[in-house]
Amino acid sequence: MINRLVSNIKKTGAPIVAGLDPMLGYIPEHIKAAAFAEYGETLEGASEAVWQFNKEIVDKIYDLIPAVKPQIAMYEQFGLPGLAAFKKTVDYCKDKGLVVIGDIKRGDIGSTSAAYAAGHIGRVQVGEKSYAPFDEDFVTVNPYLGSDGVNPFIDVCKEEKKGLFILVKTSNPSSGEFQDQLIGGKPLYELVGEKVAEWGASCMGDDYSYIGAVVGATYPAMGKVLRKIMPKAYILVPGYGAQGGKGADLVHFFNEDGLGAIVNSSRGIIAAYKQEKYSRFGEENFGDASRAAVEDMISDIKGALESR
Amino acid sequence: MINRLVSNIKKTGAPIVAGLDPMLGYIPEHIKAAAFAEYGETLEGASEAVWQFNKEIVDKIYDLIPAVKPQIAMYEQFGLPGLAAFKKTVDYCKDKGLVVIGDIKRGDIGSTSAAYAAGHIGRVQVGEKSYAPFDEDFVTVNPYLGSDGVNPFIDVCKEEKKGLFILVKTSNPSSGEFQDQLIGGKPLYELVGEKVAEWGASCMGDDYSYIGAVVGATYPAMGKVLRKIMPKAYILVPGYGAQGGKGADLVHFFNEDGLGAIVNSSRGIIAAYKQEKYSRFGEENFGDASRAAVEDMISDIKGALESR
Repeated sequence: MINRLVSNIKKTGAPIVAGLDPMLGYIPEHIKAAAFAEYGETLEGASEAVWQFNKEIVDKIYDLIPAVKPQIAMYEQFGLPGLAAFKKTVDYCKDKGLVVIGDIKRGDIGSTSAAYAAGHIGRVQVGEKSYAPFDEDFVTVNPYLGSDGVNPFIDVCKEEKKGLFILVKTSNPSSGEFQDQLIGGKPLYELVGEKVAEWGASCMGDDYSYIGAVVGATYPAMGKVLRKIMPKAYILVPGYGAQGGKGADLVHFFNEDGLGAIVNSSRGIIAAYKQEKYSRFGEENFGDASRAAVEDMISDIKGALESR
Repeated sequence: MINRLVSNIKKTGAPIVAGLDPMLGYIPEHIKAAAFAEYGETLEGASEAVWQFNKEIVDKIYDLIPAVKPQIAMYEQFGLPGLAAFKKTVDYCKDKGLVVIGDIKRGDIGSTSAAYAAGHIGRVQVGEKSYAPFDEDFVTVNPYLGSDGVNPFIDVCKEEKKGLFILVKTSNPSSGEFQDQLIGGKPLYELVGEKVAEWGASCMGDDYSYIGAVVGATYPAMGKVLRKIMPKAYILVPGYGAQGGKGADLVHFFNEDGLGAIVNSSRGIIAAYKQEKYSRFGEENFGDASRAAVEDMISDIKGALESR
């Protein structure tokens, strides 16, 4: 799957991922009105609005980008109907040729991580049959429980040719509270980064490992250090755009080959129509605003990489 | 909710929680056969088996215990039907008067944690209406992202009178890989424990805070230290029984008042009928075996507390 991600990135020339993190506040009124007319102001209605919103955006941008990253929390908040919309979104994006990164940030003791891995990137056995319940291509994993919480995900990746992005340094303001603490003079995130490199060494695709890392765009200096610690890990970089990261901050997340990182933008793409810059499209044409935002993001990052 | 948990514990005299973590391998053949006859060897069939298994066990033990802890991964592995069985289990246990601790170990950046909190212990707004999608009483939270990943859960707890158990020192063998690393001479888990005490100080029930902690039974010496660092936090203690923890290891997790900790057993209770010790019940009467295992666990812990 890492080879497909890299080939999709080369084909589109776009090391970016669209974060499909729909909040009801982002969804245009006409979409919500249609969904509520059909299902009422219910969890089903909200989930239908989320799905129709996603579908329109994906239809408008799928040819420009290699991958999407649906954040499962935004679906899980609407209960079972919301999770059904998550699954529909995963399937639809895969049908469009996109690599799907399930942003699930799971992680638990061994047997429990094994269940999450089976449900999200693997298969679960029921009698003589087996099923792939959510079937994302990659998932994000929280490393706080250590190797035996991560290994069951890695085992499933090996079997199913899937991949992981492990949280190393997250994009949020208080990520340093624990992640930056010095251990023998070295911050915790470096220690986790070293582990990611170690876990990833036996999980190589053609040029990159399918065990990647999450490092926030909001911490470019740390990104530069982590790039060196994990030379073969793909880095998923959240925090571009709405969270404050800019193209120029991102160059050190990439290797010399222009590969090795994939930058996520969520609000900046899916709610682009709400920005002054894209208001010319109008709420009705929110998908076109998203397309314009993707094109601008691609050229921002391309420009930054070319002028480094 | 912490007051209800404490009052349930006093009423039953049982500081224990039954972990409803059903794996298909634990479920007796006659339950699976009936479920597969109705739904086939499908995700629906597996989920029906899980639900019928849970229901029988809860019917047999609900009067002995204060709380249950369903591990959502064991349901999520069966996709949407599995999560429907999770929700049915939560609702059924609440109807029986049990406090329900959703073992979800979520945690993300602020806006995303807010969505998880809304979905699991809070309410989500849809137009003019609002819904409580999963509606557990407590959830477990992963602290790796720091305060701004935890605060949205705390905010919802304050509004909805719910509670949290935050991962401090987990029960698995490799939990020390990151959690035991020394920061200025002090292990990371102590730093997290101090934060739990700080977060919990403004979240007091009558005697205990509704911001609790997870500390594994498998690390009793660390439990003793953490008990002192977080005197007002309820400690959820996994790892008893199948993972190796014994009653005598647990005394230091409790305060002098005999309160302050609640010990989880999953396999040891729900798959008791598979143990030599309870084989007299037979597979058909697996619920009675679970009841006997609960009674034995209560007396093991009571004995250890009385002889300290």
